[in-house]
Amino acid sequence: MKLDNIISEPSRILQGSRIPEAYSVNEHSEKVNLHAVAYPLNTQEVVDLVKYANQNDLVIITYGANTGLAEATSAFGGELIIDLSKMNQIIDFDLDTLTLVVEPGVTNGEVQQYVESKGYFYPPDPGAKHGSIGGNVATNAGGMRAVKYGTTRDYVRKMEIVLANGDVIETGSVAIKNSSGYNLNHLFIGSEGTLGIITKVYLKVIPLPKFKQSYIAAFPSLDDAAEAVLSILRNGLDITAVEFFERRAIAYSEQLLNKTFPSENGVAYLLMTFDGMHEAVIQEEAQRLEKITHDHYAVEFLVLSEEDSLTAWDLRDNILAGILTISEQEPLDYSVPVNEFVNFFKYTHEVEANSGLNFISFGHAGDGNIHSSILRADLTQDEWQKKKHEILTNLYAYVSEVGGLPSAEHGIGLVKKPYFKQVMSSEYLHYLKQIKMAFDPDNRLNPGKIFD
Amino acid sequence: MKLDNIISEPSRILQGSRIPEAYSVNEHSEKVNLHAVAYPLNTQEVVDLVKYANQNDLVIITYGANTGLAEATSAFGGELIIDLSKMNQIIDFDLDTLTLVVEPGVTNGEVQQYVESKGYFYPPDPGAKHGSIGGNVATNAGGMRAVKYGTTRDYVRKMEIVLANGDVIETGSVAIKNSSGYNLNHLFIGSEGTLGIITKVYLKVIPLPKFKQSYIAAFPSLDDAAEAVLSILRNGLDITAVEFFERRAIAYSEQLLNKTFPSENGVAYLLMTFDGMHEAVIQEEAQRLEKITHDHYAVEFLVLSEEDSLTAWDLRDNILAGILTISEQEPLDYSVPVNEFVNFFKYTHEVEANSGLNFISFGHAGDGNIHSSILRADLTQDEWQKKKHEILTNLYAYVSEVGGLPSAEHGIGLVKKPYFKQVMSSEYLHYLKQIKMAFDPDNRLNPGKIFD
Repeated sequence: MKLDNIISEPSRILQGSRIPEAYSVNEHSEKVNLHAVAYPLNTQEVVDLVKYANQNDLVIITYGANTGLAEATSAFGGELIIDLSKMNQIIDFDLDTLTLVVEPGVTNGEVQQYVESKGYFYPPDPGAKHGSIGGNVATNAGGMRAVKYGTTRDYVRKMEIVLANGDVIETGSVAIKNSSGYNLNHLFIGSEGTLGIITKVYLKVIPLPKFKQSYIAAFPSLDDAAEAVLSILRNGLDITAVEFFERRAIAYSEQLLNKTFPSENGVAYLLMTFDGMHEAVIQEEAQRLEKITHDHYAVEFLVLSEEDSLTAWDLRDNILAGILTISEQEPLDYSVPVNEFVNFFKYTHEVEANSGLNFISFGHAGDGNIHSSILRADLTQDEWQKKKHEILTNLYAYVSEVGGLPSAEHGIGLVKKPYFKQVMSSEYLHYLKQIKMAFDPDNRLNPGKIFD
Repeated sequence: MKLDNIISEPSRILQGSRIPEAYSVNEHSEKVNLHAVAYPLNTQEVVDLVKYANQNDLVIITYGANTGLAEATSAFGGELIIDLSKMNQIIDFDLDTLTLVVEPGVTNGEVQQYVESKGYFYPPDPGAKHGSIGGNVATNAGGMRAVKYGTTRDYVRKMEIVLANGDVIETGSVAIKNSSGYNLNHLFIGSEGTLGIITKVYLKVIPLPKFKQSYIAAFPSLDDAAEAVLSILRNGLDITAVEFFERRAIAYSEQLLNKTFPSENGVAYLLMTFDGMHEAVIQEEAQRLEKITHDHYAVEFLVLSEEDSLTAWDLRDNILAGILTISEQEPLDYSVPVNEFVNFFKYTHEVEANSGLNFISFGHAGDGNIHSSILRADLTQDEWQKKKHEILTNLYAYVSEVGGLPSAEHGIGLVKKPYFKQVMSSEYLHYLKQIKMAFDPDNRLNPGKIFD
């Protein structure tokens, strides 16, 4: 079989110099040679490409929208890239079971817009709205609303998957409850393209909340803000989002967007949202929320207008982009028990003081997911790699010590692989590799990611 | 190593004639010879027992409270039974992360009572409150409240597991978000003792809802009741439980308990609950609920007093027990898309008419989980097995045709194994077996369950 027997349109098979740099230049600005980049339109073409890869002993890397932050799609050379961005159709929306069936190349933003226009809601809300649903599933993407609604994992009812030998299986079911053998759905979710190629996803959607209101609480210290978060959770407030950041983190995006954050008081902020079907409940919970923040010494509590709410969330969404305008940086994504959240902010302050590197932290406080950015500033590449590695080795050891994990929602990919190895037991990694072998004995799908 | 070096107390190692029939007599009343029944008290003893089984090439079956309905713990002869019922301690309750740490032998009822006494809530609520948490995890037990709160799977943060070779691993994390390699937590949940032995479970608990109210709607037909359920779900009512049964199903438990169901009208019932933190919301939703049921021709809508609520739920919980007083029966547990629910009730009526066998159906309408009971009545054992097999073969083919699954919350075990094989593709089963081999290459843990 030849590639042009599988896909006859030249625009959907790129080889040699026709391959864009987005695929062939890695994060260290090194160019690698790829076998080809293919853009299949349907499952059969994916199957044929996989069989072609088997016949020619090629490694396959599956691409979505390339918004990942863990280098899970980096190439080493010689690979067949299967880019699913043209498999981007919404196939069906079944209102009886509230199931949306999509191809993997549909973006998260498209899914959200589509279902909201019909009065329904797809809660997973990662920062990159142009990320693909296939990629969201492959990394178990989370986002702002995970504290109330969970992550992508909680919204996948069923999938169609092409395996390493070209077998096509269906995992999960549109039926809600499932105790019928090992749960392959959950195994493939978060497997970063190493176990199979997702060609169809059946998503769970829910009725759209009728009311939504955001708030800002400004605190005089990190500790006060963090204690307030624990109080909010412990009191059973049904909060949709609780974002935590320091004044200086939001300053980067203020500069980038040329917008002003609604509060100028305090040094640490909580940006929070309630949503639901009952306005009175939101108002009642907001009163409890305000009281809790005051009990924890908040210097300001703002009920945001729609305009201020858009500004505040836009600034929050752009913290990372703001930081990137200043310096190259390493984006982190660790996950700690919620009561350890503040300790990591303190720890990163210590690291800053000791290392001389800027270390900006912000995160999803309601679920213990911290996004720290370590800034390269003016270090040479060698100094930067060395210093970064030293900081990360200590950081991940501390994360592990408190029972946390190196990745909450970005995945392990290539960037966190050494640290994943550092913190997991060798027995644990052994069994992950055994699972990989069970599905992909030739190590054909995205080898070298997550583990060696 | 000898067994009495591992466990020195004779009361915790039973062999020969000291083994109770509960372990050694199978569902066909056949007695099998077992190697031993051991009652370990801690993880180290479990590890030593597993190593002993490896040295002596014994098969291991793990027991919880023996409340399973899928014969997942049936013995074939020669096995070492590891009964975890004496590992029954509540180890820790961490209020910061709302995590309850328990040994596997603690029962579901004990967990519910313990956390409720402290103002918290463990939602998974299978019929058998004396089932063990280890067993709940091994079957992904569901129950009445799954429509709002999900199943056991959604409440397991982390586990300690002893593997087939005696390795001990930890899966999952107390940290909420996890995108760190393949999710082993979810793989072990629902694996029915075939992949490892659960020795510690970290459960997620939530704040206890302050208000709870149950309702009965009586309908003139199955169709009307089923359409009402779809309307309730589609309208976004945040309902905790929606149980569906026919008049004649509840009649069995009325007879058994000598109690009267609060409604005597109609032929099909919905027994429903709302719970939550806001009484006004429950009242408002109840008004919407009442309107929906009236729109679907309900002949009665009752807001239950506490006493009537207890009676109604007690009668619901005892449908199966009531049926059992009349006849031997086969308890089913299939899972279908919610909009197929009523079709299966109609189908079972047809089967009854054609087969001459009674086929009582009831179930968790809100999540498409149907518990049918086929009654043996006065058939001979041969006739019963033959007729039952014919009915089940057709039933599971139909379940599969609509995208459903043979088990929603009981597991496959031994009883559904032939039908699981019938409805799943051979490729799918191949990969399940590959996973089994990855964790248990000697096929030492509960072999012959789920698949051959």
